[in-house]
Amino acid sequence: PRAREAGVTVGILEPGPLNAITDVAGVTVGQVTLPRSRAVNTGVTAILPHGGNLFQDKVPAGFVAYNAFGKFMGSTQIVELGEVETPILLTNTLNVAEAGAAAVEWTLAQPGNEDVRSVNAVVGETNDGLLNVIRGRHVTIADARRAIDSARSGPVAEGAVGAGAGTVAFGFKAGIGTASRKLPAALGGWTLGVLVQANYGGVLTIAGVPVGVQLGRYDYRQQVEDRKADGSVVIVIATDAPLSDRNLRRVAERAFAGIARTGSSFSNGSGDYALAFSTAQAVRRTTDRRKDVASVQDLPNDRISPLFQATIEATEEAVLNALFKAHTVEGHRGTADALPLDKVLPMLKKAR
Amino acid sequence: PRAREAGVTVGILEPGPLNAITDVAGVTVGQVTLPRSRAVNTGVTAILPHGGNLFQDKVPAGFVAYNAFGKFMGSTQIVELGEVETPILLTNTLNVAEAGAAAVEWTLAQPGNEDVRSVNAVVGETNDGLLNVIRGRHVTIADARRAIDSARSGPVAEGAVGAGAGTVAFGFKAGIGTASRKLPAALGGWTLGVLVQANYGGVLTIAGVPVGVQLGRYDYRQQVEDRKADGSVVIVIATDAPLSDRNLRRVAERAFAGIARTGSSFSNGSGDYALAFSTAQAVRRTTDRRKDVASVQDLPNDRISPLFQATIEATEEAVLNALFKAHTVEGHRGTADALPLDKVLPMLKKAR
Amino acid sequence: PRAREAGVTVGILEPGPLNAITDVAGVTVGQVTLPRSRAVNTGVTAILPHGGNLFQDKVPAGFVAYNAFGKFMGSTQIVELGEVETPILLTNTLNVAEAGAAAVEWTLAQPGNEDVRSVNAVVGETNDGLLNVIRGRHVTIADARRAIDSARSGPVAEGAVGAGAGTVAFGFKAGIGTASRKLPAALGGWTLGVLVQANYGGVLTIAGVPVGVQLGRYDYRQQVEDRKADGSVVIVIATDAPLSDRNLRRVAERAFAGIARTGSSFSNGSGDYALAFSTAQAVRRTTDRRKDVASVQDLPNDRISPLFQATIEATEEAVLNALFKAHTVEGHRGTADALPLDKVLPMLKKAR
Amino acid sequence: PRAREAGVTVGILEPGPLNAITDVAGVTVGQVTLPRSRAVNTGVTAILPHGGNLFQDKVPAGFVAYNAFGKFMGSTQIVELGEVETPILLTNTLNVAEAGAAAVEWTLAQPGNEDVRSVNAVVGETNDGLLNVIRGRHVTIADARRAIDSARSGPVAEGAVGAGAGTVAFGFKAGIGTASRKLPAALGGWTLGVLVQANYGGVLTIAGVPVGVQLGRYDYRQQVEDRKADGSVVIVIATDAPLSDRNLRRVAERAFAGIARTGSSFSNGSGDYALAFSTAQAVRRTTDRRKDVASVQDLPNDRISPLFQATIEATEEAVLNALFKAHTVEGHRGTADALPLDKVLPMLKKAR
Repeated sequence: PRAREAGVTVGILEPGPLNAITDVAGVTVGQVTLPRSRAVNTGVTAILPHGGNLFQDKVPAGFVAYNAFGKFMGSTQIVELGEVETPILLTNTLNVAEAGAAAVEWTLAQPGNEDVRSVNAVVGETNDGLLNVIRGRHVTIADARRAIDSARSGPVAEGAVGAGAGTVAFGFKAGIGTASRKLPAALGGWTLGVLVQANYGGVLTIAGVPVGVQLGRYDYRQQVEDRKADGSVVIVIATDAPLSDRNLRRVAERAFAGIARTGSSFSNGSGDYALAFSTAQAVRRTTDRRKDVASVQDLPNDRISPLFQATIEATEEAVLNALFKAHTVEGHRGTADALPLDKVLPMLKKAR
Repeated sequence: PRAREAGVTVGILEPGPLNAITDVAGVTVGQVTLPRSRAVNTGVTAILPHGGNLFQDKVPAGFVAYNAFGKFMGSTQIVELGEVETPILLTNTLNVAEAGAAAVEWTLAQPGNEDVRSVNAVVGETNDGLLNVIRGRHVTIADARRAIDSARSGPVAEGAVGAGAGTVAFGFKAGIGTASRKLPAALGGWTLGVLVQANYGGVLTIAGVPVGVQLGRYDYRQQVEDRKADGSVVIVIATDAPLSDRNLRRVAERAFAGIARTGSSFSNGSGDYALAFSTAQAVRRTTDRRKDVASVQDLPNDRISPLFQATIEATEEAVLNALFKAHTVEGHRGTADALPLDKVLPMLKKAR
Repeated sequence: PRAREAGVTVGILEPGPLNAITDVAGVTVGQVTLPRSRAVNTGVTAILPHGGNLFQDKVPAGFVAYNAFGKFMGSTQIVELGEVETPILLTNTLNVAEAGAAAVEWTLAQPGNEDVRSVNAVVGETNDGLLNVIRGRHVTIADARRAIDSARSGPVAEGAVGAGAGTVAFGFKAGIGTASRKLPAALGGWTLGVLVQANYGGVLTIAGVPVGVQLGRYDYRQQVEDRKADGSVVIVIATDAPLSDRNLRRVAERAFAGIARTGSSFSNGSGDYALAFSTAQAVRRTTDRRKDVASVQDLPNDRISPLFQATIEATEEAVLNALFKAHTVEGHRGTADALPLDKVLPMLKKAR
Repeated sequence: PRAREAGVTVGILEPGPLNAITDVAGVTVGQVTLPRSRAVNTGVTAILPHGGNLFQDKVPAGFVAYNAFGKFMGSTQIVELGEVETPILLTNTLNVAEAGAAAVEWTLAQPGNEDVRSVNAVVGETNDGLLNVIRGRHVTIADARRAIDSARSGPVAEGAVGAGAGTVAFGFKAGIGTASRKLPAALGGWTLGVLVQANYGGVLTIAGVPVGVQLGRYDYRQQVEDRKADGSVVIVIATDAPLSDRNLRRVAERAFAGIARTGSSFSNGSGDYALAFSTAQAVRRTTDRRKDVASVQDLPNDRISPLFQATIEATEEAVLNALFKAHTVEGHRGTADALPLDKVLPMLKKAR
């Protein structure tokens, strides 16, 4: 079950109807999981901010690296220009190049882009090297293009799927998770959705309960630094609120507060990145608006705090969904067990 | 009682003997609380990295602004040069200038500094305008100099004292808090201490228990954005580990994970800053080392993660100490109640 | 004479009518020079972005530290919120606190600000310790308030005046300088003005001619690092173009290209900061706009490059004006000669 | 001829014996130019910081994006960890992915890297779309691997070669250029070398002489913003000085002062990046040093300024070399003429 179906409530705000990033109208998600074996547990997840020509009608965006032991591609241009112009792809650490090539090729091939000669591909990654023979670099450009082409609205598959096929968090199988929040009308009524690729460690904490300690499985337990460079979390945040790129960056930064609440220790080897974009038409950088002085809407600084709270909550819940929905996966260097909900749910119940 | 005395345990690492920033050898703290009235609830807290000439023998330092609705003074030079050369002062928002002047005057007056013509004063602040007539700008240069001069090792006063005399967190009286962690020998054996000036909001969470919700007192409860620009938290972190300024910045960044776990929503109006420094002689920027190529020690990236965990835990516990030790204060625009431990402790007990 | 009056042309764009920051409508400048002696050569320069209530009607702003061996106050909030809400003050290194206190007091005292309890004072500085007994900390809060109160539109005094009373550049007396550019209509027709407080070193280059070498006066000439921590340049840029805070940051960054062309070596001891703001009504953060979603204008990324060129040119010319207009000043540790135009102008003529 | 051979002197410091990045001992450069046609004018340039196992023995590094309309790969990890662990590759904008894949594959294949599962590929690019059918994405992984494998010490080919095969600067054919400076013993005796991939615009200025204006070829001449997103410059800086990653970042930042002096307007569409690394054994992050607290050397802040000056000068001269050495190239959308030295050299002579 997803966390909320299992009775876990995170925060004080309500989720949207799907409790997914696709609650933000227009956002679509596509995932390709490579045929699974002990050697291959990897894939690609694609998030498209809207269904039009992403390059011609760019979306404002903000980016934050909390701990940047990672290979996120495309970040400097996002920050400089405050915008995203391609699908956002997630994959494994050693296939960033293939995903990047796919984003470029796909963009060049879109109708209307015949004269495009510069494309800022955006690719995040985490390291699935425990379960996946990552040195094999299995993901192809074609795989990544299929992920883009398969993007749909509606519910999003979670757990050991797409770019989460082989990822592990807190010693358990994790992967892709998503969640959303819909603000009450008095706070603006905006929708904000989050998708995570969870692959990090620390002391697993669910709704405040230190489950990792109670299960006897957490970092530093052996008083040995045994974490390696294979942790990471990439967080993608969508909202329909008309935010400037500066305020989108601030939204992105709050995602790490949600990660913190799950018990992350943000270790040296973790690549922790967040990218937030707005789907609001009133801030979209259309061909027309990019020609000359144009009018845009702006939610002022003083009204943004509820979106920060929504980001924190949805990020925390997205991680829990990644863990709750993942199944046990056997890989080439070990096995990642699913979170033992039979033990965990009673712990959570006892604490309430 | 402090949180730990009341039975609250945070994290998996052990505190130092004082469970205070002063567990880091050489660090001293001085605090001046202005004579209290309904109109005046403010003061100054000073942290000195070592007992020598701070300007001549600078300490490497790292700085992070998580949400920078605040008036932190001295940050750009800290980042550029990677060092602190004065006492670190905390006070209220509208007296940053006076504290800064005090740091300058004190530095100019130290023996050996007769030729000094440039001083980078470091001042953090939060807004105590609920309890304090902050527009009165009560803190004088002399007050701030007394805080520096009174700095001592040993236990640190917590709660409504010094720069925390008038601050409020999660709707309760808060103020200054401190805590520390001593790593086991296998993880390096380093000590890391934290001091916070806590003055922010969100949904109070103690050791994972959503106490704020259970008490019915938390932000957004009225579905109204009623938070104003008076939240903030400033976090000072000391360690005896031989860290580069880059890794000190990374340590500073982890403090916000501890803040996140207390339930902060990092709202727009919050000024959330962290400053970390190393007291290790092997990295100190002495007059000799600043003359020519010199040898320094360096704890490598791969060994730093336990210090990140220590920072997260000590920061969370320092905030709890600020809340647990503060007493009710009546001020000019309202009263900030002490945290009702009679209600809170049973909540915590029930959750365990 | 100013540089242009002496026949020096910088760049390819035309200046505004005053060739000053005050060509940007609404911008005013006030300067206080302390009564001069061998011991006292210092002062304050104030720039006001508009004539209304700056705190209630904030201006979007961008900030860049190129080399941050300096004490610029207020930068973190400018970056986080993308705005300036007070006068911008310049003074000497050890009087930043007094200027900051003045900005706070002045803001609290403005009609309409009776409930203000948080003010982000913005103060830049350079070190005039060669000509001024800087340890005397001569500038008072009252001096700085007078600078604000005396702000006027129209021509701006240059050279050894205000915050430039005691500053030195390239070994010659420098100080305050200003210049502007007015874009042709086809490039937007915007006006952009710059004011500098010049106090730095390198190899003086005027319109490309290495005058410093020809005069035999430049850094590293003795192959000795004899530069100390007293160089710096602070650059304030105003424009009437409707820019986002992100694009104002980009404008600010270009100022250093202008500084580079004057021969700066951006040495370790230099505090090199730039702050850019927009006076456009269409982006002003008025009380109304700060209440809820509001409409603002935005000059898109693709149309901004001419403003970058304007910034580079106006900054270079402003520095030249600071040098050309300064007179010789005798101070307590030495004398700073005026640039010997009798020798320099022929060098420039020969090169053309 | 190279600029210096043609009588152009830049700055006040002396070059090294080769006046190239390879003056820094251990640094090698490899270049692959694809077989040339009207449709194909592109290639790859590889810089290797040392001849050992780059992944096991990493070099400290600093990175700066001045204007980040570009696709630089690998920057976030460089900044977080302060190091480079692969060859540094330059290519065209739409082949970053292929160069990145090559850096990954080459690293995985090195002896001693059999267990490596995370590689931070570093790739810079500029847009050669005027002369090259960039949408054809001609560069293959094999091409990029050949560039790495062909890296050698000694003189470096300049102009229309490698990653500079198709680039254009100031309207003239440019490409790869290099230069160096050797500090006098009194300033430390260090060597610093620069390599640029020059592809940007503005008003060409050679040794201070506004050659672009005199030739009647410069940006904004038509008072039309006709610059597109195809400008850029990537700058790689090597030094044998024992610098921290923080001070390497500061070195990198100075490169843009050199670019400024060539007349760059740092337009919106430019991707201007600099990466600096140290080859000093005393700061190399060897397998041993990465295990536990280790001793490293550090050139202090107070001694670094001459390296800043060296960076500025070598960068300016490297750009001139790129222009002076490039030959006319006919491409698919136009022709880029070589700089007409027959006209330019007399202009320079006249100005001296």
